[in-house]
Amino acid sequence: MLRVGVAGARGYTGEELVKILIKHPEVRLTYLAATLEKATAFDELFPKFRGRLDLKCENFSVDKAAEKCDLLFLALPHTVSMDFVPKLIKKGKKVIDLSADYRLKNFGIYKQWYHKAHKDKKNLKSSVYGLPELYRQKIKKASLIANPGCYPTAAILGALPILIAGLCEKDGLIIDAKSGVSGAGKKVALGYIYPEVNENFKGYKFNVHQHSPEINQELSKVSSSRVNVVFCPHLLPVNRGIFETIYVRLNKALDLAKAVDIYKKFYKDEPFVRVKNAGVLPELKDVVGTNFCDIGLVCDKDRKLLIVISVIDNLLKGASGQAVQNMNIMCGFGERTALL
Amino acid sequence: MLRVGVAGARGYTGEELVKILIKHPEVRLTYLAATLEKATAFDELFPKFRGRLDLKCENFSVDKAAEKCDLLFLALPHTVSMDFVPKLIKKGKKVIDLSADYRLKNFGIYKQWYHKAHKDKKNLKSSVYGLPELYRQKIKKASLIANPGCYPTAAILGALPILIAGLCEKDGLIIDAKSGVSGAGKKVALGYIYPEVNENFKGYKFNVHQHSPEINQELSKVSSSRVNVVFCPHLLPVNRGIFETIYVRLNKALDLAKAVDIYKKFYKDEPFVRVKNAGVLPELKDVVGTNFCDIGLVCDKDRKLLIVISVIDNLLKGASGQAVQNMNIMCGFGERTALL
Amino acid sequence: MLRVGVAGARGYTGEELVKILIKHPEVRLTYLAATLEKATAFDELFPKFRGRLDLKCENFSVDKAAEKCDLLFLALPHTVSMDFVPKLIKKGKKVIDLSADYRLKNFGIYKQWYHKAHKDKKNLKSSVYGLPELYRQKIKKASLIANPGCYPTAAILGALPILIAGLCEKDGLIIDAKSGVSGAGKKVALGYIYPEVNENFKGYKFNVHQHSPEINQELSKVSSSRVNVVFCPHLLPVNRGIFETIYVRLNKALDLAKAVDIYKKFYKDEPFVRVKNAGVLPELKDVVGTNFCDIGLVCDKDRKLLIVISVIDNLLKGASGQAVQNMNIMCGFGERTALL
Amino acid sequence: MLRVGVAGARGYTGEELVKILIKHPEVRLTYLAATLEKATAFDELFPKFRGRLDLKCENFSVDKAAEKCDLLFLALPHTVSMDFVPKLIKKGKKVIDLSADYRLKNFGIYKQWYHKAHKDKKNLKSSVYGLPELYRQKIKKASLIANPGCYPTAAILGALPILIAGLCEKDGLIIDAKSGVSGAGKKVALGYIYPEVNENFKGYKFNVHQHSPEINQELSKVSSSRVNVVFCPHLLPVNRGIFETIYVRLNKALDLAKAVDIYKKFYKDEPFVRVKNAGVLPELKDVVGTNFCDIGLVCDKDRKLLIVISVIDNLLKGASGQAVQNMNIMCGFGERTALL
Repeated sequence: MLRVGVAGARGYTGEELVKILIKHPEVRLTYLAATLEKATAFDELFPKFRGRLDLKCENFSVDKAAEKCDLLFLALPHTVSMDFVPKLIKKGKKVIDLSADYRLKNFGIYKQWYHKAHKDKKNLKSSVYGLPELYRQKIKKASLIANPGCYPTAAILGALPILIAGLCEKDGLIIDAKSGVSGAGKKVALGYIYPEVNENFKGYKFNVHQHSPEINQELSKVSSSRVNVVFCPHLLPVNRGIFETIYVRLNKALDLAKAVDIYKKFYKDEPFVRVKNAGVLPELKDVVGTNFCDIGLVCDKDRKLLIVISVIDNLLKGASGQAVQNMNIMCGFGERTALL
Repeated sequence: MLRVGVAGARGYTGEELVKILIKHPEVRLTYLAATLEKATAFDELFPKFRGRLDLKCENFSVDKAAEKCDLLFLALPHTVSMDFVPKLIKKGKKVIDLSADYRLKNFGIYKQWYHKAHKDKKNLKSSVYGLPELYRQKIKKASLIANPGCYPTAAILGALPILIAGLCEKDGLIIDAKSGVSGAGKKVALGYIYPEVNENFKGYKFNVHQHSPEINQELSKVSSSRVNVVFCPHLLPVNRGIFETIYVRLNKALDLAKAVDIYKKFYKDEPFVRVKNAGVLPELKDVVGTNFCDIGLVCDKDRKLLIVISVIDNLLKGASGQAVQNMNIMCGFGERTALL
Repeated sequence: MLRVGVAGARGYTGEELVKILIKHPEVRLTYLAATLEKATAFDELFPKFRGRLDLKCENFSVDKAAEKCDLLFLALPHTVSMDFVPKLIKKGKKVIDLSADYRLKNFGIYKQWYHKAHKDKKNLKSSVYGLPELYRQKIKKASLIANPGCYPTAAILGALPILIAGLCEKDGLIIDAKSGVSGAGKKVALGYIYPEVNENFKGYKFNVHQHSPEINQELSKVSSSRVNVVFCPHLLPVNRGIFETIYVRLNKALDLAKAVDIYKKFYKDEPFVRVKNAGVLPELKDVVGTNFCDIGLVCDKDRKLLIVISVIDNLLKGASGQAVQNMNIMCGFGERTALL
Repeated sequence: MLRVGVAGARGYTGEELVKILIKHPEVRLTYLAATLEKATAFDELFPKFRGRLDLKCENFSVDKAAEKCDLLFLALPHTVSMDFVPKLIKKGKKVIDLSADYRLKNFGIYKQWYHKAHKDKKNLKSSVYGLPELYRQKIKKASLIANPGCYPTAAILGALPILIAGLCEKDGLIIDAKSGVSGAGKKVALGYIYPEVNENFKGYKFNVHQHSPEINQELSKVSSSRVNVVFCPHLLPVNRGIFETIYVRLNKALDLAKAVDIYKKFYKDEPFVRVKNAGVLPELKDVVGTNFCDIGLVCDKDRKLLIVISVIDNLLKGASGQAVQNMNIMCGFGERTALL
């Protein structure tokens, strides 16, 4: 049994990690950490876990974590993870980092978006971007996984097949994204209290959201030239789920059947990507509570436009579910274990 | 035209006051105050008011308020209002205080529930509890109105007729109350962020909610003996509205027709209380956005129980609407003006 | 006092019409019709109107309507209105039709989208598309108004200024629209029950929604060439409100300040369109419950893209509010009367 | 591997059953039935199951069901189940019936509440009311389980310990119950469409809800005299969950510590009932998505009142979860299997 721990166990992604890990037959959850006044039973922090998990949650200590675990999930804030990762890696631990700290390979871009210089360029280099659909082979051998952001997961999976097929303009990608409120984490701010979000809808950070460079990095890698998406996120009054409507300008006319065929072939062996048949569109509720990414397509032949809908649960395929999928791959477990 | 102002204009009740006052044909809104870094156009704080109101909102100054207004609405936190009321009253202003500061006539009880000694016993004595259905004649002549709490408004209106008819046990009143989230004001705390409230429901402060003594005070006054309610509030995942299910033990059997008759007669001249016919129950949406209190009755003859449903919009009949109703009465305007 | 009536008073737009009309100082609501087993007090159908309106709602009769009213609002289903309009017009009544029957000027297109041949080509010709921002002068003299659809109102108002300025590609307009559930009317179908909509989000009728030809018709009229938008509606889990994110490809680089200036100038005399300053985006809750259309802009200079956010309340500026605005213009009342 | 089937697989409880059963290590899901035009892949009816289950859903046939399964879950409407149960029992199948058909042991009461004479008195007699906390030993040997209703599950579990302790009045039990919308099943009716439920709250069927006799039957059984509860259900704008606030008049003073002690002792060996410590109250979200019933207590010594909060997920402990718990007991599987 692999001994695993979660640092940052008190947030929404931490909670989801715990929920999955206690059902995972190949691991034992041995360590939970969060910022607390004093060590507290986890089921006191989250009464829903009473009778399901008997473990204390304590303040994070790298040494303690290393002593107790073979693999660590870090659900810490951006710019904090990189303080701890080098020590854990040095002690031979496997690390799956859910923050943004190891996602952007370019130091300058990291600093520009997260307003801090990167402190751990060595591990940044060897880390693997944990999108199994792109990097499964590298993940198998990795010690450090940069678990993708929620918006980027849906965006990249939605755009990959058509980009790689070379059928679209590199500069015509518009991503109209809508995210449930847990995407902001457990943020206590006026804009997130119930009466401000409920019965409301708004856009924010159009083209200046920190997930843009992550999407651009990964889509550029798989293309022959630089991709620079238009990324417009909106806040959706639901607890969970990301829904992205992606507008792709094609460089030649394409009919729907052909487009669906390209996507189905691309993902035919993927356990967690489901491409809809022509004429059917995915809904948020089909993926909430699951690790799936569902993709649906609409073709506008006249205007040579492909419209891709890509939906995920932001806390699962967009965070904790994908993190466990990565662990399963790294550790040679069945990739779907505890995720179906 | 009466010149009116609102202190505490940035909260939910302040916003509702402004919404009503700008449509009121007998008043001119001349002063808005809130805690701000610097004076700011009100429509910058609340973009929904752009094109409807051109007024700055500034930090509260008693002198400025007195200079600019004939009547002040104070939508300030509890224990803060009583610092300003004496000065305004002294300057001959009319004041409608939406806080709890002048509701409880007993100093000791005030201190017990609001954890501060009362500083203005003189005005406390002369203030009138602003429930028009009970105190219309006194309100006409009042200078200072203690605007009732939201829960107490629904509870008192729901229990009054049967209590005054002398048909129920004084100690058998159970109030199972459910309130929309704006009832907590614009409170920025973990328990009020969207993912914690949405798809959730909970009880809180059973029998220790600060509105209990207010309900007890008013119901005791109209009864021949002390009333001591069981008051159990719950947090309802809606923006607005209070729904109270009140269980009243009768001291003699009563049938539904008779009970409805008692209620209809009691409220027959009231412009903002509507009693349902036998067999019909009110719903929250019938009153949200209005100043009405809707009341429905169910009779359980076997167990000599009367079940009263009393619903209001917590921000209107439970706060700002009732405050304007009080102003209308105090100033001799039509009681429904700007409220229908 | 103008005598007005509403046919189709039982739906969401009918209810909103009544709410506005009973507060309107220049009109008297004299007639309400809906499909009913027997004539029923309106406040029995809608308990929220008790004490505010004392009028029966009866089955629709053109003769009765004509006898009782000077002006009729028809909130009837598409393809039904055109059965009654000719008779009302013939009797000299003014008609504001909230259905789609008189919006599309081209018979063939009407038939293609509403699956019925148009029966009243004569009045179709003389009817005026009731978007005051485009046709105020014609509305003043009109007898029959085709009240615009909810999606088209937000879309056209959002796109007009930049289109008329001649600064964008005619074929690059992408409208990613999100609508609250009341946009579907009071439709009783599995897809609209609470557990299917709540915590869900989905797209529907991409490029095949019946509002597309309406948007195209109006935008083409104001352009020198045919406009053919990409229109992708989504179902938003809120009761009311439409939020459209419109992606406009510019034919030359434009900075944000200049774009905002173009929009502000275009709408400077409009009572119900508010253009946000640069850097500020509208939210749904700023317009819900109002007749305003709020517009915000984001400029992507690199990719020569203008992103327009246009938001309205689908039941007000998108239906009943705009209908009353049209009545106000037709009848020489103040345009804002009863709408602020 | 036990072969199991679900009849009525298209409703919310059917869906939940499938979700649990496909993860259950001791069973194989071999048969799914629902009312359909033609046999359809289950993942076409519920796209969320694509890649997780490959089974057709067909019209229900008793013979087919018996041929394919050892145990049947019937999630059929009330008054329909009793047509099929005798045949399945006769063929030696185990049956867990989620309808009300076998819950009420008294024929007359069944007819009074479900408006049909009972057709299968023989099996009614031998059936076991599937509340493991009361009837675990009988369930072990049962062939036919009457799976409890959702409201009754929460009510009975909440009231049992204090009733059995003999500390309360038998006729003073008031149950103020609030249920999420899925409690009504997948009912397509005006009262359940999103805009009618969202931002609304209402009571319904006070004292005339068909779950009253079920609660009374079970609570009377465990008491020395007839219990007759006051049962007031309300519709809560959430997808799932039942929250009951139960007001119990005590026949002697009791302090909170003692009350909590009574409850904790009563449920100390129960895998799915969790009693809160004194001072802590359960919330709906602690149990949604789980098979737990969480219970919290408040004591009002002055008025000799015990207030019990009892919360469950109506689709799990209130239906499908409990059904699987019953199967686990009947078949000798670990009681928690697939339920944690």
